[in-house]
Amino acid sequence: VSLSLADIQAAAERIRGLAVRTPLIEAPTASAATGARVFVKPEVLQRTGSFKFRGAMSRLSLLNADERKRGVVAFSSGNHAQGVAAAAKQLGVPATIVMPADAPKLKIANTRGYGAEVVLYDRQKEDRVAIGKKLAANQGLTLLPPFDDYNVMAGQGTIGLELIEDAKAFGITFDAVLAPCSGGGLTSGIATALAALSPTTKVYAVEPMAFDDLARSLKAGERLANAPGAKSICDALMVDKPGELTFPILQKTKVEALAVSDDEALRAMAHAFYELKLVAEPSGASSLAAVLTRKLETKGKTIAVILSGGNVDADIFERALAR
Amino acid sequence: VSLSLADIQAAAERIRGLAVRTPLIEAPTASAATGARVFVKPEVLQRTGSFKFRGAMSRLSLLNADERKRGVVAFSSGNHAQGVAAAAKQLGVPATIVMPADAPKLKIANTRGYGAEVVLYDRQKEDRVAIGKKLAANQGLTLLPPFDDYNVMAGQGTIGLELIEDAKAFGITFDAVLAPCSGGGLTSGIATALAALSPTTKVYAVEPMAFDDLARSLKAGERLANAPGAKSICDALMVDKPGELTFPILQKTKVEALAVSDDEALRAMAHAFYELKLVAEPSGASSLAAVLTRKLETKGKTIAVILSGGNVDADIFERALAR
Repeated sequence: VSLSLADIQAAAERIRGLAVRTPLIEAPTASAATGARVFVKPEVLQRTGSFKFRGAMSRLSLLNADERKRGVVAFSSGNHAQGVAAAAKQLGVPATIVMPADAPKLKIANTRGYGAEVVLYDRQKEDRVAIGKKLAANQGLTLLPPFDDYNVMAGQGTIGLELIEDAKAFGITFDAVLAPCSGGGLTSGIATALAALSPTTKVYAVEPMAFDDLARSLKAGERLANAPGAKSICDALMVDKPGELTFPILQKTKVEALAVSDDEALRAMAHAFYELKLVAEPSGASSLAAVLTRKLETKGKTIAVILSGGNVDADIFERALAR
Repeated sequence: VSLSLADIQAAAERIRGLAVRTPLIEAPTASAATGARVFVKPEVLQRTGSFKFRGAMSRLSLLNADERKRGVVAFSSGNHAQGVAAAAKQLGVPATIVMPADAPKLKIANTRGYGAEVVLYDRQKEDRVAIGKKLAANQGLTLLPPFDDYNVMAGQGTIGLELIEDAKAFGITFDAVLAPCSGGGLTSGIATALAALSPTTKVYAVEPMAFDDLARSLKAGERLANAPGAKSICDALMVDKPGELTFPILQKTKVEALAVSDDEALRAMAHAFYELKLVAEPSGASSLAAVLTRKLETKGKTIAVILSGGNVDADIFERALAR
């Protein structure tokens, strides 16, 4: 396990002033509904509308002059794509992004809008890792993985540092922190920071029910895959299995996995709209959904929810509001 | 003119820990579109979804024990209603709110949800001030005006103090600050704080085109009313004329008025959704609309926009997204 608090603190220094220092917002309606004191960390306000910018900037800022000149390649269903594209643009680094053809239109358009070259692939038939590696080898690009990279995880872990800073300002200690989880980069980073700075806080990874690979893997003690062809409205959380590098960190930090349905995620989006005035995408709202539907003990607890992303097409958003 | 920086600083002490200390968020897309460096102060994240909670809590926290016991009455199209109801509930004070029958359903429901008694009136035929005063007199309630009250203005002015704190943290000085304006409480408070702490910053009050009473009043040097029966999608900005107490402050602080159309406000709501991941109501987005449509000189300027409220029904929000 090679991710330390010091790595995360170093990442925080690298991204300072480049990433948004998001606030911690108290959520009175969610609190009243659950008997907990609920706080929200709105990473939807992060540059590019998701936390992914942190990890991308953390890694990109370590490229040497030659690597910057040649450029980077990343594969992503959308939020990592936008994070890498925007961070690369800010640093003047050319970026190529491999995206599934069925990714939300908004995410594809935004990635192109940040100046990246987008290569589309078929999620059911093609292997994005292979495409990314081939592009990296052929064009001398640096591959920027979405989660299986310690400097990416360290960037996401800066959220944990900020949570602790703000908890001190509020005079609270979190009993639980919930983060949406696909490959586990966000959860690994936060869990590493909290294990060091707030050891009594339990970290939960929230997955879509059809993509509960982490829950099953933690139980089995080895990385298990999801059923091929599984579907979820949480487009950012449709991963094959936990990451090779993230999984041991999630095990060591005793992260627990919770699962939410598509309908629960949509209802949480509506809650975020009406009660928090924040735009969340289904994946980004899954952590809030887990609290609102009490997948964990909430009564009397102090809970932080990472609202991890808000890049949602209008039609999906309207489906949520109709709930 | 009886509103000073010291009044605003005292209000900040009274509401500390009770109101949300909202952040300042950089808005790269709005910046790119206007040639300015644009920041957003998201008061949509304030308790009750609008800045009005600040003024209500500032005033309510000054009630003596007897006044608290008897209760308060307020008249409002919705955001002041919710602010007073929530602040009163927090302090254990009974609240009666006089609201127009055509106010957004969400605002009426939320006001009732905070435990207030709601009295509806007909906006075209009845006088809300008279109804409020009668209730105050008959039941011994304290009348809590939406803007014409120095302690309410002082509460709204705390936004100005936070803007200056955050400007220092970013190492910037604002050339312009834009606030949506109906009676002028928010603008008076902010302009008073900025005149003292950042005298080179110009404050703009943004009105709907059909309710440009402040623009005309400032030009004429006296308070002029809007045409009876005028309509706007900006339900929170449909005021008769500038306030008696706010108007001299707006004159003295050299506030300038700008006007936006309904369509411009709706487009700014869509911008807030797609680019900022924030939910704004039409009135709340009018300040952003004025910047995006360059009603003022933007090139090379550093600009803060108060996104003042986010209490919008889903049907209006969907109209905005269709833009």
